[in-house]
Amino acid sequence: MSRLSDMGEDALIERLVRLVPTGELAEGPGDDCAVVDEGGDILKLLKTDALVEGVHYTADANARTVGWKAVARVVSDFAAMGGLPERFLVTVALRKSMEVTWIEDFYRGMGDCFSRYDAVLAGGETSSVPEGSAVVISIAATGRVEREKLVLRSGGEAGDELWVTGRLGGSLAGKHLSFLPRVDEARWLGYHTELSAMMDLSDGLASDLPRLAKASGCGFRLDRESIPVSEGCDLKQALCDGEDFELLFAVKPGGVDRAKWAERFPELGLTKIGELVAPGEGDVLDGGWDHFSQG
Amino acid sequence: MSRLSDMGEDALIERLVRLVPTGELAEGPGDDCAVVDEGGDILKLLKTDALVEGVHYTADANARTVGWKAVARVVSDFAAMGGLPERFLVTVALRKSMEVTWIEDFYRGMGDCFSRYDAVLAGGETSSVPEGSAVVISIAATGRVEREKLVLRSGGEAGDELWVTGRLGGSLAGKHLSFLPRVDEARWLGYHTELSAMMDLSDGLASDLPRLAKASGCGFRLDRESIPVSEGCDLKQALCDGEDFELLFAVKPGGVDRAKWAERFPELGLTKIGELVAPGEGDVLDGGWDHFSQG
Repeated sequence: MSRLSDMGEDALIERLVRLVPTGELAEGPGDDCAVVDEGGDILKLLKTDALVEGVHYTADANARTVGWKAVARVVSDFAAMGGLPERFLVTVALRKSMEVTWIEDFYRGMGDCFSRYDAVLAGGETSSVPEGSAVVISIAATGRVEREKLVLRSGGEAGDELWVTGRLGGSLAGKHLSFLPRVDEARWLGYHTELSAMMDLSDGLASDLPRLAKASGCGFRLDRESIPVSEGCDLKQALCDGEDFELLFAVKPGGVDRAKWAERFPELGLTKIGELVAPGEGDVLDGGWDHFSQG
Repeated sequence: MSRLSDMGEDALIERLVRLVPTGELAEGPGDDCAVVDEGGDILKLLKTDALVEGVHYTADANARTVGWKAVARVVSDFAAMGGLPERFLVTVALRKSMEVTWIEDFYRGMGDCFSRYDAVLAGGETSSVPEGSAVVISIAATGRVEREKLVLRSGGEAGDELWVTGRLGGSLAGKHLSFLPRVDEARWLGYHTELSAMMDLSDGLASDLPRLAKASGCGFRLDRESIPVSEGCDLKQALCDGEDFELLFAVKPGGVDRAKWAERFPELGLTKIGELVAPGEGDVLDGGWDHFSQG
């Protein structure tokens, strides 16, 4: 009998979603968020995400920064679709022996992120887990995006340039707890470039770039020399560490005005790292972080 | 330093929601669902809920029935507001050593419930938990209700009759895994009675009735003799077992036509169990299931 450890997360989710009704969503499971089209100019976005103690943060991590991260990860997913966050639902499964101050600080950290990104808490649920079990935090949220500003992973075409914001790698040195979701940056790109596809880098470029290319029905060519590596990191870390929460996007050739970007976001790099090519051509890249494979 | 075990779940949530922005929701945390009013005749409902292995189901429980329960609990919350379920987001944190068939059967069980209640899966997320940790399942969902059909916990008034559907107690004998959320029943009540307040019984009448009364700014008088006890159970079980997922509601005196109900739902009892009274008067009742208190 096969176990979860024998199977990648993408393969598992593909298999599972075939077992249940998924309705007529504009985009179902597979993109950064689900898109709900009920008519009108504004599309609704839905997203769920989880943080597990010992997997996404260590037991001694500052609870307030864990709260920030829990919300920021989901905000980053809305940014990846060109959208904005709205209302959050939070489920926390805790050990009864934990101190009340832990969960209070966690809520304060969530509140920091809600305030920074104009979002609100709409509902919360707490449950206990048996002593010895890991704490599990689950965040679900609604967001919105103007119909003409929606960007999917699947809109890329052969010939599109591939770009990333910021620098990649080294998330475990701390950035993974304190990163700033690229909401303003994604909105700016939506207004000043012709985005054809976009996602946020949560599992590392080596995992996420193949996903974007696959969703777009393309291959990709990656210029490894050009990848913006975080200070003190090597190329492997930039490709595989994961939790960069930078934007990866595809645009028509020549579609990015780097000078204009630098005016608006002087602190944040914007780097062309390759291009989409015909399916079956280009590079092969593998080995980002995957939750179930033992790799 | 105080620990979660020293604190009831309600008190904890009250404390936590003061730490974060909650916006201008019609109803915030505290009712069965959050209500989102964006204008128009239809209000949106938001809900999140969790199932923890070893707390809400045993490790040897049938995965398909666990999947049913995970979805049905949330459907029951939408019913409790007079509404209907729409789109579901599912987060499952699993041990890598688990068999793929477990999660497949779990998804099939969710699918059974989606199909039965006209809901769909909009997104899913999987994560690993460390070996030895409990599985945690978190379900978030959107629902809807016509503005004039919305029923809150807080609408009751002194003098209102208190009623419950079905029979209470004995959930652990199996009902807690296979119950049918009372969506049709709640909708019928919304059209054929003047509901002033409603909730679903998830923690047991002894915990939930005081909550409804408190939310309505009332006391309550409970006629213990009249409580519809499940076969093979005693009154204590009916009050405290929890996970009945029947409806508890308040109506104006004489507002329920029991004969009409029996025509439409011949299999399901409908019982008057007491009344709301002025605050500070009436009975005191305590001791349902609480996730954090050691009681």
